[in-house]
Amino acid sequence: MKLRPEQDAYGQMLRAVFDGADLHEIVERDDGFISASIFGPDLYLAPFRRWPAHHRQGMRFVRGRVLDVGAGGGRVALHLQERGHDVVAVDVSPGAIEVCRRRGIRDARVVAIEDLDESLGTFDTIVMYGNNFGLFASRAKAKRLLRRFARLTSERGRIIAETRDVSRGDDPAHVRYRKRNVARGRLPGQIRIRVRYRDLATPWFDYLMVGVGELRDILDGTGWTLERTIDSDDTYIAVIDKEAR
Amino acid sequence: MKLRPEQDAYGQMLRAVFDGADLHEIVERDDGFISASIFGPDLYLAPFRRWPAHHRQGMRFVRGRVLDVGAGGGRVALHLQERGHDVVAVDVSPGAIEVCRRRGIRDARVVAIEDLDESLGTFDTIVMYGNNFGLFASRAKAKRLLRRFARLTSERGRIIAETRDVSRGDDPAHVRYRKRNVARGRLPGQIRIRVRYRDLATPWFDYLMVGVGELRDILDGTGWTLERTIDSDDTYIAVIDKEAR
Repeated sequence: MKLRPEQDAYGQMLRAVFDGADLHEIVERDDGFISASIFGPDLYLAPFRRWPAHHRQGMRFVRGRVLDVGAGGGRVALHLQERGHDVVAVDVSPGAIEVCRRRGIRDARVVAIEDLDESLGTFDTIVMYGNNFGLFASRAKAKRLLRRFARLTSERGRIIAETRDVSRGDDPAHVRYRKRNVARGRLPGQIRIRVRYRDLATPWFDYLMVGVGELRDILDGTGWTLERTIDSDDTYIAVIDKEAR
Repeated sequence: MKLRPEQDAYGQMLRAVFDGADLHEIVERDDGFISASIFGPDLYLAPFRRWPAHHRQGMRFVRGRVLDVGAGGGRVALHLQERGHDVVAVDVSPGAIEVCRRRGIRDARVVAIEDLDESLGTFDTIVMYGNNFGLFASRAKAKRLLRRFARLTSERGRIIAETRDVSRGDDPAHVRYRKRNVARGRLPGQIRIRVRYRDLATPWFDYLMVGVGELRDILDGTGWTLERTIDSDDTYIAVIDKEAR
């Protein structure tokens, strides 16, 4: 998948924030539900000391060569690179990758998750922060990509991914949406969204939020196993290890 | 015009803010340009001392019995009521009027600007703050409503209205939009927008921004004349007086 320039709403938003704009990220769901982030997208650029506690904690589990999937503004890749890791940052957004490079990330590439392959070499850790487990999009695609991730990683391969257990929330609009998903044979937390920035909009894409039970079911048979979770009020980080063969 | 509950995105947003929510107002233009307010809609509720300087200045020109058109969260009506004026606050949004009432505005009514008539009595001052000159919607509708406002006001009738000279901005997306407007026989600053909040959206409506020259042209022949302007970096307030007969 390749984004046309007018589809890179997310990247152009990141560029504007990196250039000093004060703005809020607008995300639209396919049922018409729309929201603007409260804190603004500058979190995507935040230095380690300003990250939420569970984000900082999760970094303890990073080892070896790292692939940062959905690198966005590059905060994770930059932190790990500064810690001495060999890091490759990938994102489908050209604007995001431009920001990564301008911030000094040495290896940042425009690659969609479904186009990741062995050409990038072998990794010890794959990071999917900022709810980027969501990039797996659906149960079936997650299973397929997890099997591929097993081929892209060393024997001590590890995935550190953030997601959200949507079953906790009781907001009627969200409850309705989850029910609609289930009725359509989708996972409850399989949201279809797009990012809008000024007159740009990303394509609609599926973004998958899973509870721990759903996560275990997805991992089953893919060569990966849930090692631990690091919880917060809102999201949780899953440390997922490669099963010994 | 009457809003259905699911069309009262603006009012529900105001209610949420009044109830303590931290959020940003999302406004979508009919060319797909979307924005979220930087400061949040709590400005709609701000006490007088926190208003921008030109807003505070404009209040000096208020006299007598007041009609606040597009009262929103009621900050203007509340301030004037506290200053001892007899104030009627009107807004097309039931949620906004609910907030006005909960804040203690004694006479707050759900009325669209085109439905204003002599049943509310005679006013000395009509206030249209927060860019609410925009509610005039178009050149033709502005002229029609201004003539009606002349009938709703006393001999010393005055309109204090805020608007914006859009010709100043050079943002390419906005320049494009103004050109498109002109090509369609609309005023450059006649934007068609809607407010979105969660899964609610207002109907699309025309909102008219005018420079001083356009304003004079609109006033011409309506019985109103521009008395003075109070400028700011962004918008300006027009003090418009009834012509002597």
